[in-house]
Amino acid sequence: MPAPSSSEEFIVYYGTVIHSLAPTDLEINENAVLVVNVAIGTIVVFERNVEKLNEFLSTVNVLQNKHYTVNALSRTQFILPGFIDTHAHAPQFSFAATGMDLPLLQWLDKYTFPKESEFSDLEHAQNVYSKVIDRFLHSGTTTCSWFATIHLEACKLFTDIIERKGQRAYIGKVNMDQNSPDYYIEQTESSVNDTRTFIEYVKAKNNNLLTPIVTPRFAISCTSTLLKALGDLAKEHDVPIQSHLCENLAEIDFTMELFPDSANYTAVYDDHGLLNDRTIMAHCVHMSEEELQLLKSREAGVAHCPNSNFALQSGVCDIKKYMERDIKCGLGSDLAGGFATSILDAMRSAFIASNTTGIIKSQYENNGDQYKALDAKELIYLATLGGAKVVGMEDKIGNFKVGKDFDALVCDASDDTSVRLFRHDTPWDMLQKFIFMADERCLAHVYVKGRRVAGWKQ
Amino acid sequence: MPAPSSSEEFIVYYGTVIHSLAPTDLEINENAVLVVNVAIGTIVVFERNVEKLNEFLSTVNVLQNKHYTVNALSRTQFILPGFIDTHAHAPQFSFAATGMDLPLLQWLDKYTFPKESEFSDLEHAQNVYSKVIDRFLHSGTTTCSWFATIHLEACKLFTDIIERKGQRAYIGKVNMDQNSPDYYIEQTESSVNDTRTFIEYVKAKNNNLLTPIVTPRFAISCTSTLLKALGDLAKEHDVPIQSHLCENLAEIDFTMELFPDSANYTAVYDDHGLLNDRTIMAHCVHMSEEELQLLKSREAGVAHCPNSNFALQSGVCDIKKYMERDIKCGLGSDLAGGFATSILDAMRSAFIASNTTGIIKSQYENNGDQYKALDAKELIYLATLGGAKVVGMEDKIGNFKVGKDFDALVCDASDDTSVRLFRHDTPWDMLQKFIFMADERCLAHVYVKGRRVAGWKQ
Ligand SMILES: [Zn+2]
Ligand SMILES: [Zn+2]
Repeated sequence: MPAPSSSEEFIVYYGTVIHSLAPTDLEINENAVLVVNVAIGTIVVFERNVEKLNEFLSTVNVLQNKHYTVNALSRTQFILPGFIDTHAHAPQFSFAATGMDLPLLQWLDKYTFPKESEFSDLEHAQNVYSKVIDRFLHSGTTTCSWFATIHLEACKLFTDIIERKGQRAYIGKVNMDQNSPDYYIEQTESSVNDTRTFIEYVKAKNNNLLTPIVTPRFAISCTSTLLKALGDLAKEHDVPIQSHLCENLAEIDFTMELFPDSANYTAVYDDHGLLNDRTIMAHCVHMSEEELQLLKSREAGVAHCPNSNFALQSGVCDIKKYMERDIKCGLGSDLAGGFATSILDAMRSAFIASNTTGIIKSQYENNGDQYKALDAKELIYLATLGGAKVVGMEDKIGNFKVGKDFDALVCDASDDTSVRLFRHDTPWDMLQKFIFMADERCLAHVYVKGRRVAGWKQ
Repeated sequence: MPAPSSSEEFIVYYGTVIHSLAPTDLEINENAVLVVNVAIGTIVVFERNVEKLNEFLSTVNVLQNKHYTVNALSRTQFILPGFIDTHAHAPQFSFAATGMDLPLLQWLDKYTFPKESEFSDLEHAQNVYSKVIDRFLHSGTTTCSWFATIHLEACKLFTDIIERKGQRAYIGKVNMDQNSPDYYIEQTESSVNDTRTFIEYVKAKNNNLLTPIVTPRFAISCTSTLLKALGDLAKEHDVPIQSHLCENLAEIDFTMELFPDSANYTAVYDDHGLLNDRTIMAHCVHMSEEELQLLKSREAGVAHCPNSNFALQSGVCDIKKYMERDIKCGLGSDLAGGFATSILDAMRSAFIASNTTGIIKSQYENNGDQYKALDAKELIYLATLGGAKVVGMEDKIGNFKVGKDFDALVCDASDDTSVRLFRHDTPWDMLQKFIFMADERCLAHVYVKGRRVAGWKQ
């Protein structure tokens, strides 16, 4: 299945297509036809239950007198929407999977700030940023909401690298003007100006895969003046916002010391014009009822980062509760609070976190009777359509509705990979084995807007 | 780095060697020399800090006038002892990673027993058993303590497959004569007779990599008569014993209903002659102080299976507490209570479980001040030397002491794999990145007793 050549106008995929329509509504169709318009990268046909391909294709108006290639998937292959990582820190890839012995605030001081400060060195930035985008694409992450560093030039370079490699991305220059080390802090005014310059830099590319995002690191590292200015900037430029919220108990205490006029941590962002329907809040592990209601009323989204929450001992987030309340929820690797680059891992970690919620409810809170952990349907939802809603792109990506962009994974569960199928395995079994056993060899081809950007198969 | 040809008498490895000497004593030597006698598969030289290889080799008596090949490792390669899985169910590979929506006892009834009963079909057994051994070897598991099924013929076939593929293994025919479905249960007498026949079958192979192990599934599925007979059999044939212990709260309650004369679950095995210094008990999640003391006094070992404990919502095992008490502890995949085949996953899951213990202690029990989660040193220990102690093979495997067998992994953290190293990464960083980020592409060569049995590199 080669990359489309420029002379082809359409690609027809025929085989098992799996995607989410809602959190518990997963569609698995074994004889689906997806037709992609190569030039614009969008899905022009999605037909279920096609028994006779050629007969069907002869009825498709858009294909008449056009060049097209048919890719018939094997019985061990299927197509999924590309994975969406709603929260990750690109510079932290340099030390990911090391230094996981401290809780959040100490971890930031000892490992994160020193390593992020190195991104004033553009050669280093070039190396790390190239590798992290490669790793994420090969892990199937077609869309990512990125935190970079405070450095304007490295942020521009990062944007150029993402553009070249073809990932769909939110890109955030980080803002920090207080409670940060001398060697890694900004002046309030230059923080705002650099952010404006960066927003304009990304927008000037006129590349609809790339969106600048206003990115106060978290309330602790930003003065009230800066937070307010960033809220204004987001409004002025009509761009999304991302930050961290209620990750760790000590972080919450410190935040409330710093912002005593706000009713709670969530309200700190709200009070500065930073909580709206384009806001992504990472973690949200320790949320009061009041805060949940505020978050929901503003239609902000939650980036659930279970690997990170375990690795930094932040806590266990009951993401199912948020999903049941119709709060927008997606998955985040939170590289490098989390040690994994992949949303496959985030699905597994979310499964483990959800089971841990069950264990805590039944064994520590005497309250487990009604609890049912996330299943594979919900995990796929969080990794795809749920994430698309969190990043406000559900009209463009997240599943295979006609008119959406073809951000997709051609998955392979053959014996060449880490998965093994047996005689009675159904497509549903295959999907579960993929979620829990796949490694990158199972990602044969990764597409963003119809362009092949990564994949294990040549 | 090809497999040794028969004309070579010795292989010399030169580079970074990493192994455990004790739970918190991990040796990382960047210029180590390991010399392996190919014919017998044992380590004959282990020298640290060798700056000039040829000069050193000219001083090694055993190499004089002998054929040998030198394998110089690159800076992104290192050698680890082979991984030891102290608890896994081979037949359950057929449905691993599916059906994870029920707690233990219901999970056994709905998924496990039907799938295990299929192993009366030898063709099916051949297929699943071949694939599971392949998967485990490619995952770096050089030694495994296996549960098979109740079927004698399939157990023999399984033994033949393991022998051909070259894994070091404990192999257990499972015993079940009560509280089991009609289609998957034994008569007490035939259960004992088949077990004796199987023990003799394995012993007759005279292959020192293969050991039969007495394997009552768990107390619930065995009558007191059967348990007693199995204890006698283990003693008579001088073989090890494995079972499950204190995995799930409902399991414990049911066990104590069935065996009211025993003081506790651990005592049930002890009362039937099944708890000794060659016993491996899987899980041990919910152990009373009394039970811990009994387990320790009998010098039995614990197979810590964190992935399974999460997936079945069994509970969170505080394995550090057992390690601190000098109870023998290793890791188990518990395929397919656990969804992963790999001890790399078990290390990650153990890290997550240990962090979860920290979260529970501090956030739910107000008792977290002294707690420190498992670190990479302890994870490697559990995966190698700790496991070797659990299976009673610490004189043969688990680290690279001279005289031990060469069960080893040549690990690769180059950019061809899932790991990325950066300019300041030390061998300790490389090891941590390997533990938390490696996939099978990082396992270049896998050796059991000097024989190459798997590996990603040709
Ligand atoms: Zn973060
Ligand atoms: Zn088990």
